[in-house]
Amino acid sequence: MIGGTARMIVRFGDLLANVAHRHPEAPAVTFLGRTRTWTDIHTRCRNIAAAFEGMGLEPGERVAYLGFNSDALFELFFAPAMARLETVAMNFRWSLQECIAALEDTAPRVLVFDAAHAEQAMAAAAASPSITHLFQTEGAAPMGAEPFEDLVRRDGCPSTEGSGGDDTLIIFFTGGTTGHSKGVMISHANMLTNALGAPPIMRNQLERAQIIIGPMFHMAPGSRIFSAVLLNAHSVIMPKFDMVEMMQLVARHRVHAVTMVPTMMHMLLEHPEFSRHDLSSLGPIMLGGSPTPPALLERALEAFPGALFSNGYGMTEMSNLIAALTPEYHVLEGPMAGKLQSVGRPVPYLDVRIVDADDHELPRGEIGEIVARGPTVMKGYLNRPEETAEALRGGWFHTGDMGWFDQDGLLTISGRLKDMIITGGENVYPTEVEDALTAHQAVSQVAVIGVPDPKWGEAVHAIVILADGADANADDLIAHCRTRIAGYKVPRGITFRTEPMPLSGANKVLKTELRKPFLEDGD
Amino acid sequence: MIGGTARMIVRFGDLLANVAHRHPEAPAVTFLGRTRTWTDIHTRCRNIAAAFEGMGLEPGERVAYLGFNSDALFELFFAPAMARLETVAMNFRWSLQECIAALEDTAPRVLVFDAAHAEQAMAAAAASPSITHLFQTEGAAPMGAEPFEDLVRRDGCPSTEGSGGDDTLIIFFTGGTTGHSKGVMISHANMLTNALGAPPIMRNQLERAQIIIGPMFHMAPGSRIFSAVLLNAHSVIMPKFDMVEMMQLVARHRVHAVTMVPTMMHMLLEHPEFSRHDLSSLGPIMLGGSPTPPALLERALEAFPGALFSNGYGMTEMSNLIAALTPEYHVLEGPMAGKLQSVGRPVPYLDVRIVDADDHELPRGEIGEIVARGPTVMKGYLNRPEETAEALRGGWFHTGDMGWFDQDGLLTISGRLKDMIITGGENVYPTEVEDALTAHQAVSQVAVIGVPDPKWGEAVHAIVILADGADANADDLIAHCRTRIAGYKVPRGITFRTEPMPLSGANKVLKTELRKPFLEDGD
Repeated sequence: MIGGTARMIVRFGDLLANVAHRHPEAPAVTFLGRTRTWTDIHTRCRNIAAAFEGMGLEPGERVAYLGFNSDALFELFFAPAMARLETVAMNFRWSLQECIAALEDTAPRVLVFDAAHAEQAMAAAAASPSITHLFQTEGAAPMGAEPFEDLVRRDGCPSTEGSGGDDTLIIFFTGGTTGHSKGVMISHANMLTNALGAPPIMRNQLERAQIIIGPMFHMAPGSRIFSAVLLNAHSVIMPKFDMVEMMQLVARHRVHAVTMVPTMMHMLLEHPEFSRHDLSSLGPIMLGGSPTPPALLERALEAFPGALFSNGYGMTEMSNLIAALTPEYHVLEGPMAGKLQSVGRPVPYLDVRIVDADDHELPRGEIGEIVARGPTVMKGYLNRPEETAEALRGGWFHTGDMGWFDQDGLLTISGRLKDMIITGGENVYPTEVEDALTAHQAVSQVAVIGVPDPKWGEAVHAIVILADGADANADDLIAHCRTRIAGYKVPRGITFRTEPMPLSGANKVLKTELRKPFLEDGD
Repeated sequence: MIGGTARMIVRFGDLLANVAHRHPEAPAVTFLGRTRTWTDIHTRCRNIAAAFEGMGLEPGERVAYLGFNSDALFELFFAPAMARLETVAMNFRWSLQECIAALEDTAPRVLVFDAAHAEQAMAAAAASPSITHLFQTEGAAPMGAEPFEDLVRRDGCPSTEGSGGDDTLIIFFTGGTTGHSKGVMISHANMLTNALGAPPIMRNQLERAQIIIGPMFHMAPGSRIFSAVLLNAHSVIMPKFDMVEMMQLVARHRVHAVTMVPTMMHMLLEHPEFSRHDLSSLGPIMLGGSPTPPALLERALEAFPGALFSNGYGMTEMSNLIAALTPEYHVLEGPMAGKLQSVGRPVPYLDVRIVDADDHELPRGEIGEIVARGPTVMKGYLNRPEETAEALRGGWFHTGDMGWFDQDGLLTISGRLKDMIITGGENVYPTEVEDALTAHQAVSQVAVIGVPDPKWGEAVHAIVILADGADANADDLIAHCRTRIAGYKVPRGITFRTEPMPLSGANKVLKTELRKPFLEDGD
């Protein structure tokens, strides 16, 4: 007999049950050659939820995961909610101290980890009194921990209908390109809105495969797991990114959708094995993290004639997507061309505006901070009421990103508010300087930062990676900049670099790292 | 300075403000040759909301509208919510007594009406003590009423941020094909989910025009007004349906999207002026209310080579869409063909199942009642806690429709539970008998009902409209049925009819009307 209580609110546990009911034998997750159907996943999640209850976990308590992408993490995106618990997605790149701080902050009862992070997890857990249960996903669990499969073994059914609506579904952490990582509380309703609203913008179709190549502990890849239950999509999950393996998986599973940064697309097209794999199943290819260079788009359009490219701008605190440049702008000619530097229009359910430092709205064309409001704004930062109030002041989420709207309503990102350089009282947006330098043929990559300067407060400084075989010195590049941007924006100094730029987990250049050598005490 | 309080929940007032901010000069509504931009509409709605507050209306009080479609009704879908009031959408086909009953049920403070319904509105208001203010949309208002434009005249700003989330946004009434009309409370969150989830299924694009030809007081056309603020769509509103005017408007405004019943598509293709109008802008054409006959699809595909046809199944209590047969099934050949009798797959955010009279789930292929749960289930029936509890028993909304799932997960509707005929203890679904009769070449339209029978309890009876110039008597048709369906399903009697079938406002055959002559006391 069907049962339960009236369910007018969204519960991701229900959505998982829906798809299992609708497509019981369809593949839900493939990981390391192992495929689980929606029935498998739903049954396993129900068992895990019941096991958590059996261990005495109370509604609102938390389950944390530390490790590479895995099908276990997929399950931990749903199972805790089915027992009214909250998921904590930890960053496997954190230091031990950072792990301990996150465990102190979120106070989980359970920590699940993979074999590669067992040592780190056990060490962090030893310093974290909230933790009562430890599980390792694969391989022999260390002393004090149990195999994750023990959670699944016994058939069970959670006693509650699960959390939903405005209850916290999951805690993701901010990328931490500036300052500490903050826990971001995302509700079921937050995530439903993104999961319903974002896929049509990228033109994702129902019942197709998607490949997850980025770390699921970050919002951008993680949110695609939640939209998979609405798209009835098959998620092919890579533990870590590997180009050849990605090509093989796309070909083997006829993968439809993928998200990657433009640099990765560049590496893909350059890869010696590129032409050996059948990647023709790819439809919506979402680029993001930075604009798509026109030359790259040209090559990509040729290499993927059946694909639909888009470029997105998202943020953890906004349950992912804020704006997207849709496929019709991914052309090289005609009236829609020439917009590739922008992130496109805000998603229709959000109000996105540009404001000055006093939160006064700025007219179109002027650069200011990007603020947004709507149903995907996070519930708040965990345990940080003051930072929450500050971020949400005036009723708007303050992204910390600078940007401007053009006359067509397309949004262009100008850089991070915190990356803005103030030199001699003038504001300099690093992006503008980076664009000027990138236009020099000898420059392959560039990052512009502000460094302490006794006279100007801050001075504009560029870190440059030259193109293969190219030759240019600092004077050449500075002279080039003088012809393109105002004098106060021209770099006072240039550092040449041969190793790659330091990147965050979200593949953003870590300017804090680049700035460190210039700070007197290494602060 | 931007302001307000944190807005993590959806408010349709905010969504209207968003689109006005994003596309200030874009057309929002065209009605009787008059076009209002999103700025116009937003400003007018804000003024109307402030005027309602100025009149002393308190949060949770109601504003009702009685009349044909209009741009005033468009505004009344948003303005009340901006003052935390609720909209009541009255059916202009109601008798005076029905209007009075609805006003007693909803107890609005304000009644807005158009000139064509002024007499009915004033008479109903005279019997409705809750009403303190009356407004007529156009023309000279009768004594005791004021011009609707008076509400708009003064610049104002409501003192609140408006209702949102689980607050009631609007009360629509059920079609009332069986029994009385019930008020259905729909929340902002209900409507957001449909407005985000339904358009991609029909392949609606952003920033295009839609034409509203059905009565907006019904959920199916009404819900498209709410999705318009997310699609940034231009709504071209017809006061009443007129085929020639529709063709002119589609051509003039390059209309992209339209919803109509298959019969209307048939009339359109048959219309002598059809080829004289440029209807090539039509993209997504949503049919609904009944399956699309293959012969009609064949003609429609030829007449609209650029269109994408779909067929939807919706319901007032489900904030509209429950399932949809998507464009790829609207073909005449190939593996996707042959599904036109179905309404397709449930929308991905709903759990839809088939149950028997005891609410036990039935296996695929078996006919039973269609039940659904998910975030678009209504808050409840207004003032009818027992009927609400009955409809939502066990946590599922009971549609009252019978249907079955095929092996591909496509849903086919078999008729209304209340239309089911029980004859000699056997269940007969009228649709099955109707399909058998329709297969006879002499039959143009048919409706099968149960009529009282002293021996069998009920007897199967068919009302038949013959095709033009066709000739067949009852014996011919009964003999035809005997070769196709079981004996107990074969009609015991046939009534031939020359006038059209009586239709509800939602263009469904009113079987209650057809049954009346057979009931002894005309009950």
